[in-house]
Amino acid sequence: MTDERTSLADESLSLHRQWRGKLAVAPKCPLDGRRDLALAYTPGVAEPCKRIAADAQAAYECTIKGNTVAVVTDGSAVLGLGNIGPTAALPVMEGKAALFKAFGGVDAFPICLDTQDTDEIVRACIQLAPVFGGINLEDIAAPRCFEIEERLNEALDIPVFHDDQHGTAIVVLSGIINALRLVGKGAPECRVVINGAGSAGIAIAKLLLAYGFEHVTLCDIDGIVSSANPSLNDAQRAMLAVTNLEDAQGTLADALVGADVLVGVSAPGVVSQDMVRSMAPGAIVFAMANPTPEIFPDEAKAAGAAVVGTGRSDFPNQVNNVIAFPGIFKGALQARAERITEPMKLAAAKALAALVPDDELSADFIIPDPFDPRAADAVAEAVRACAGAEKRG
Amino acid sequence: MTDERTSLADESLSLHRQWRGKLAVAPKCPLDGRRDLALAYTPGVAEPCKRIAADAQAAYECTIKGNTVAVVTDGSAVLGLGNIGPTAALPVMEGKAALFKAFGGVDAFPICLDTQDTDEIVRACIQLAPVFGGINLEDIAAPRCFEIEERLNEALDIPVFHDDQHGTAIVVLSGIINALRLVGKGAPECRVVINGAGSAGIAIAKLLLAYGFEHVTLCDIDGIVSSANPSLNDAQRAMLAVTNLEDAQGTLADALVGADVLVGVSAPGVVSQDMVRSMAPGAIVFAMANPTPEIFPDEAKAAGAAVVGTGRSDFPNQVNNVIAFPGIFKGALQARAERITEPMKLAAAKALAALVPDDELSADFIIPDPFDPRAADAVAEAVRACAGAEKRG
Repeated sequence: MTDERTSLADESLSLHRQWRGKLAVAPKCPLDGRRDLALAYTPGVAEPCKRIAADAQAAYECTIKGNTVAVVTDGSAVLGLGNIGPTAALPVMEGKAALFKAFGGVDAFPICLDTQDTDEIVRACIQLAPVFGGINLEDIAAPRCFEIEERLNEALDIPVFHDDQHGTAIVVLSGIINALRLVGKGAPECRVVINGAGSAGIAIAKLLLAYGFEHVTLCDIDGIVSSANPSLNDAQRAMLAVTNLEDAQGTLADALVGADVLVGVSAPGVVSQDMVRSMAPGAIVFAMANPTPEIFPDEAKAAGAAVVGTGRSDFPNQVNNVIAFPGIFKGALQARAERITEPMKLAAAKALAALVPDDELSADFIIPDPFDPRAADAVAEAVRACAGAEKRG
Repeated sequence: MTDERTSLADESLSLHRQWRGKLAVAPKCPLDGRRDLALAYTPGVAEPCKRIAADAQAAYECTIKGNTVAVVTDGSAVLGLGNIGPTAALPVMEGKAALFKAFGGVDAFPICLDTQDTDEIVRACIQLAPVFGGINLEDIAAPRCFEIEERLNEALDIPVFHDDQHGTAIVVLSGIINALRLVGKGAPECRVVINGAGSAGIAIAKLLLAYGFEHVTLCDIDGIVSSANPSLNDAQRAMLAVTNLEDAQGTLADALVGADVLVGVSAPGVVSQDMVRSMAPGAIVFAMANPTPEIFPDEAKAAGAAVVGTGRSDFPNQVNNVIAFPGIFKGALQARAERITEPMKLAAAKALAALVPDDELSADFIIPDPFDPRAADAVAEAVRACAGAEKRG
């Protein structure tokens, strides 16, 4: 295991040196002679410029704006590496941009900002916006990420989407929808415990509530997030109004007694088999700490879990954002949506869940494969239909 | 002529709509299966990230930084269109980025900033810098462009180059070097008049002085730039120390009497045949106002000019920056230069001039064709050699 990871790391470093970056910017227009230059550049280019000056929406037709997303980070919360800064974050942002194209046909470009000040990040994104049809925020630490996303969505007329929050929430919800189909439970009566009250945990809680779950409890390193917890940040405190409505206090173990669903976005090995045993029959466990999950699937199943998902590609039911974000932005760009709204996220999760038909649904297949070629278009179509309904409505 | 320009404009607009933008961002790494994803993205990507966190220079080896340039504008001085704003400027910046790749193999991405405040532009560029190996400033109004370039070159360890100034100056100098070969004059004894004291005119003056010209006079709409001119900006005033040393006063016509070289970066038709007739024998005229030059080549030649260049592709001796900037950045990136220095610009101009051999040099061939496939590498090699000498020196 350790050898295998070391070898993967060495091979990745060596390949990155060989690739010299994972993205190329290539002309889509011919540039082979004077006539080509006169059409793509001066003097011909003045005409699309004048068109856009007269009507800014024309940028969606005449420029890259209509199909291009900025992948923006400040390098403050990169993978499990933490605050490594903007330059060291670039390989991740390039990878993300590459996935946008490979999985969704969306052009994306990495923007690694040399500042970790909320006001400066907001201002930089506003200043950058003319070129882009959307902004994907990535690996920005909580709670800063909440404020940045909120302020940008207010300030800009292009969608701003923090994938670590919402992409994760969409894929988790799609998996839970199918796990419930399997165990025959309905969302309103289920008790859900989310361990990890950072940006992903809070976004998952919000989306589950929007979907129809009514009993959601957040836990963090201090146990159940309740009014008794003295160290909550603003985002966590705001969740008290909609989660843990009975204001229960105690440990993660306390919270899990009788629970139907556990979603872990926390730390390696923090969930024991005893905790899983204490859950309700037909327990659903998403243990997404990476690379070592909160509890390994075989252990969770031995303790009675009916369905287990992780963040890893070497176990069944991988929660991998790549199945969501390319389609989310593809649909939003096609619709020229100004926001990624809650209904769009719900529609995306349902569309992903629907890709697993009844006769294939099983404890080991509740989430479509990340390479499922139907995923991006299914998600895009769901987002586009929502955007259309919202514009009409 | 008018019909032809209208048809070019219509065709360009129609093509821009068809292209839907002139740039694509494409992955350079395979992304076809789980193993590919594990190497290009998580978990393998953590290794190059850690490498860069330990040594920022590793970004040049492992990421796009080593071959990627930002094409930055604020949309304040776009072509002949003026202050059309950042979104309407995007077709030009995309075209510029496309030329970077097609002519120099350099990846470039347009950054159109939604601000025209000098401080904010400087700050945005500093914040953007981690992803880029260089910044090409484009179509930013004078005198703001001077301060922005200067402050960025002080603040950043990547080269920042305002192509409207220096790219133009390099190509003009290369043409003048060859024109002097043709008429058999030396730089020190020549009298040069530059009409147009904006960013390009001032940059041309500076580079000619650095090359060895000793008698340079700037003119603008008020005539000769002298101490008597009340409306000079700071950049123009600073030029009084090195140009028009006798502090002559008068009109452009006065300045041209007996002059050897006229460089026009001004306005259509402002140079008369009488003015050219008043110049010294073997007069060299660069009339680069676009699309209508200060004087048409046939008129200038009829009035005695020995060599005439313009900005247009349908006359001989086109001054076209595309012959310089791709190679400038290619060489600077290869050398990891922190600045584009005066010696690099001079070396680039000489390298371009040297592409025209003695037996091909003629009044109609002093500047290599913009499509000359040797140009980018010749310029890059000159810049790289200079950078090496500066590092050793």
